[in-house]
Amino acid sequence: MSQKPMSKIIQLDPTATEYQRILNGPPETMTMRSGYVVLQPGNSVGRHSTETFEEMIVIIDGEGEMVLGDGTVLLLKPYSVAYCPPATEHDVRNTGSGALRYLYVVSAAG
Amino acid sequence: MSQKPMSKIIQLDPTATEYQRILNGPPETMTMRSGYVVLQPGNSVGRHSTETFEEMIVIIDGEGEMVLGDGTVLLLKPYSVAYCPPATEHDVRNTGSGALRYLYVVSAAG
Repeated sequence: MSQKPMSKIIQLDPTATEYQRILNGPPETMTMRSGYVVLQPGNSVGRHSTETFEEMIVIIDGEGEMVLGDGTVLLLKPYSVAYCPPATEHDVRNTGSGALRYLYVVSAAG
Repeated sequence: MSQKPMSKIIQLDPTATEYQRILNGPPETMTMRSGYVVLQPGNSVGRHSTETFEEMIVIIDGEGEMVLGDGTVLLLKPYSVAYCPPATEHDVRNTGSGALRYLYVVSAAG
């Protein structure tokens, strides 16, 4: 049996109220991992670093901010894409009145 | 001057009619590249392989299909996410009556 990653399609729920995994990392992919995050108003994912991975997030719905360890604040809204380099502390907060839905993808920095 | 990647935010145009770059690869990122693709009805990006990179695409608007080299067809619609492993021939076609808008992200397979 091959452990090589296969092409696949994943359907997201536009009205999701909780986290949905998209890509789980090896052997499903080479290094990519991805998930669909839902944050209720006032909630945050918590300060974290993706360590040796770089990250891109795509805002699907709602309003929020990405707060970097150095205090930089990136405003998040639909059609925003944010990039966060490896080894960078950050948090994502819902600052709006509805759910904040976004998709992240991380990959090994090479 | 540091060449280390910096965090950043990119705003996409929901009504875009042409390609918009999101992430250009090193030194802007470690290995990630990303772009926002707009295909008019009947158009396709053309058969290609991302070689040593793996790819994820996120459908923003419209309807289409990803056709793999082995004939597999993945149906694309809003809230669909497709994954394509390295060294995999594929094409993306707009099969709908309006613009197909999607975002891709590729990263080195490690």
